[in-house]
Amino acid sequence: MKVIILAGGIGTRLWPLSRTNYPKQFLKIKKMARSIFQMTYERCLKLTDHQQIYIVTNINYKFLVVGQIEELGHQIDDRQILIEPVGKNTLPAIYYGVKEIQKQGDDITVVFPSDHLIKDEERFINTIKQGENLADQYIITFGICPTKPHTGYGYIKPKEPLQVGNRVDQFKEKPDKETAVNYLAMGYLWNSGMFMFRTDIFCQEVKEYLPDVCDAFKSPNILDIYDQTPSVSIDYGLMEKSKNVAVIPLDVHWSDLGSFDAFYDEFDVDEQGNLNFDKDILIDSSNNMLYSNKEKAVALIGVHDLILVDQKDALLVCRRDHSQRVKEVVDRLKELNDPRADYHLTAYRPWGSYTILEEGFFYKIKRITVLPGKKLSYQLHHHRSEHWVVVKGTAKVTIEGKETFVRSGESTFVQTGFKHRLENPGKVLLEVIEVQLGEYLNEDDIVRLDDDFGRSSGTLE
Amino acid sequence: MKVIILAGGIGTRLWPLSRTNYPKQFLKIKKMARSIFQMTYERCLKLTDHQQIYIVTNINYKFLVVGQIEELGHQIDDRQILIEPVGKNTLPAIYYGVKEIQKQGDDITVVFPSDHLIKDEERFINTIKQGENLADQYIITFGICPTKPHTGYGYIKPKEPLQVGNRVDQFKEKPDKETAVNYLAMGYLWNSGMFMFRTDIFCQEVKEYLPDVCDAFKSPNILDIYDQTPSVSIDYGLMEKSKNVAVIPLDVHWSDLGSFDAFYDEFDVDEQGNLNFDKDILIDSSNNMLYSNKEKAVALIGVHDLILVDQKDALLVCRRDHSQRVKEVVDRLKELNDPRADYHLTAYRPWGSYTILEEGFFYKIKRITVLPGKKLSYQLHHHRSEHWVVVKGTAKVTIEGKETFVRSGESTFVQTGFKHRLENPGKVLLEVIEVQLGEYLNEDDIVRLDDDFGRSSGTLE
Repeated sequence: MKVIILAGGIGTRLWPLSRTNYPKQFLKIKKMARSIFQMTYERCLKLTDHQQIYIVTNINYKFLVVGQIEELGHQIDDRQILIEPVGKNTLPAIYYGVKEIQKQGDDITVVFPSDHLIKDEERFINTIKQGENLADQYIITFGICPTKPHTGYGYIKPKEPLQVGNRVDQFKEKPDKETAVNYLAMGYLWNSGMFMFRTDIFCQEVKEYLPDVCDAFKSPNILDIYDQTPSVSIDYGLMEKSKNVAVIPLDVHWSDLGSFDAFYDEFDVDEQGNLNFDKDILIDSSNNMLYSNKEKAVALIGVHDLILVDQKDALLVCRRDHSQRVKEVVDRLKELNDPRADYHLTAYRPWGSYTILEEGFFYKIKRITVLPGKKLSYQLHHHRSEHWVVVKGTAKVTIEGKETFVRSGESTFVQTGFKHRLENPGKVLLEVIEVQLGEYLNEDDIVRLDDDFGRSSGTLE
Repeated sequence: MKVIILAGGIGTRLWPLSRTNYPKQFLKIKKMARSIFQMTYERCLKLTDHQQIYIVTNINYKFLVVGQIEELGHQIDDRQILIEPVGKNTLPAIYYGVKEIQKQGDDITVVFPSDHLIKDEERFINTIKQGENLADQYIITFGICPTKPHTGYGYIKPKEPLQVGNRVDQFKEKPDKETAVNYLAMGYLWNSGMFMFRTDIFCQEVKEYLPDVCDAFKSPNILDIYDQTPSVSIDYGLMEKSKNVAVIPLDVHWSDLGSFDAFYDEFDVDEQGNLNFDKDILIDSSNNMLYSNKEKAVALIGVHDLILVDQKDALLVCRRDHSQRVKEVVDRLKELNDPRADYHLTAYRPWGSYTILEEGFFYKIKRITVLPGKKLSYQLHHHRSEHWVVVKGTAKVTIEGKETFVRSGESTFVQTGFKHRLENPGKVLLEVIEVQLGEYLNEDDIVRLDDDFGRSSGTLE
């Protein structure tokens, strides 16, 4: 069995926790040991071998995918990470994965989003495996057994039963409350966005209902393919049209974490209904969600039903029943070209991460963390000098070809225009405080002379 | 005419804007050019010469007083700053000032709190001056003409009129709403805590009604005096007992800024009733006060009637009609020995200030700002080394007796145990990024070998 994980989503409704460059699926949420991408990946390992898992994402998330899989103790081949040059909704993403799988021959394939939270893992795995009984005839979708008349999800109306599950009668858009109540009474299921099919059957269906997509993928060049293919979802483009669709009910706890209100529902609250991730001071306050930095003193007095998310560079205060509107904030920030729509203060790189601690006139301070055995590119900057103070571990520093070791408590200095490289030759994390000085301090002032990760000059990745 | 400014108050109701070590009167509030202490001081200069102004405060605020007066372009003699070893309410503070004034001979003296906001300055000055007409016979209090039936202030009931103002019939405690409405109808005035008297008359009255205070001040030692004197307010201890009290109505805009709700009332709000000090994103939100760092992206969605104060190390979210309860948060933090009750991340020193940017395991990063011509003490630390990167101005650095100049963009390093001094020999601000490294990084690891400001080792002042 093959698996395609869709990991290119840029959901904006958990801002400021998530940002365009670090979306929901990769978030390390407090009280959870792993990101939901990592949980998805580990679930897939119970269905198949890690060699059989394909991940469709975009270039911005490539190193997040690699890094988070490495963190789980696994390796992933480059051929298993499919980079879409641009997002064109779910159908082209799945088709891209399918075409890659077909290089090894046709097979039964399961498709999972990577941004959904699922509990009851054993039942989940068993139900997914049952799909194989229908895969010779049907494209299978898994429908979540609903627990309440939710108006934020699409529904699936089943008709006559099959060996397992049912044929699908109709897909229904997000309903209003009254309709949702009816849907529940009539046994409709939530549309979860999880599918199973034989790749040859899937391709036949795409050829029939979406010939434009099929044609686009005949181009040898991925840029051309994504330039030509229409943007279309698998639901609208295929599932609603195909005559061979089955649905298997999936009776597990499931959430798309599509808003902070859904997020709130996933955790235990205290007696006053507060979900507090730290030891904050709550006076006469109830039914709030409070997510802040543990270093910060936060106090609430006399407030109720609020979502409060405090990050170093951004603060959201939102009434819980308005949490769908967080997207409007992100839209507003994008209009203003505000980088906080897209970036955290902490940026993840293939070699580790950095956090901007402070920006002032002509200077910027970063904490740089380099993973054991990794090195940054050999590079130079035209507009800034860099002071490095090692606060943890040992750095191997190359400046204009000369190598030195800089130990914890020691420092070094890189002049403007000098070629340099920072490397962690050790077995523990390397932490460096960098003070940059210069009249231009943006990340794109970088000339890369050599890079372990194949990155070019003037780019962020 | 002499002036006593009371500047020892530690009001906690504007936390986290104010902290015990940086209280309300010294705050530089956005949209205001000066602190209310500075505004008070400048008003006093319209009544008398700067040599005649005495300031009663405590050791923690001494350099704030000096610094903020210097900032206004004035100098203050050490004899004009009276340092109480411990707060014993208003009467001993005023008596301390009076005793000091009497060293120059008896005089008419005005007493002002430094934490009240006053507009209509010309009318204010003219009204205060009228008090001189009554000073030969009365202790005069200035009663604010009330604008609404406020339940947060004490009231003064006037009786028969004098040449100016009236004799006082009674002082009234904070009333309930209904009583306050009656008070307004009957022409009562707000008790403002501003007084005028002849020092000889004042001392006679203290001798009569508060002989314990009088006796305590006979000791030659200020520690003994404050050990012996009872803690007592001028209102309760003297004004309510004396038979020679007059009140002069003061028809000016006045606020004690005693809570964030009062704070909110002092500024213009937008059409939705929001008081926003920065360009934050407010969606479907009204009647909020939002005070944050301008570097931070703050968004409100669907929230109303909230006080939101966001500082780097602390966040308060409070319903506006609960703003009196902020004190409870400070009490809670004190119980927890949380330094954020008392300190900001920025600390003011006689030579300038520093801001803690980041604290990690075994390291701490500070931005140090040294005023032109000032120098830190010649000092050493037993437990930390310090890396200094100059980001603005030029530093004169002395390490083990050796002087060097470190210019913007350059850096230097002070080893653990080495004697060192940082100095700004220039005409512009010096800004240094300091990375401290060591197993113990608290401020009390300091041995002072020489200090321009008379400070000793192991102390913070």
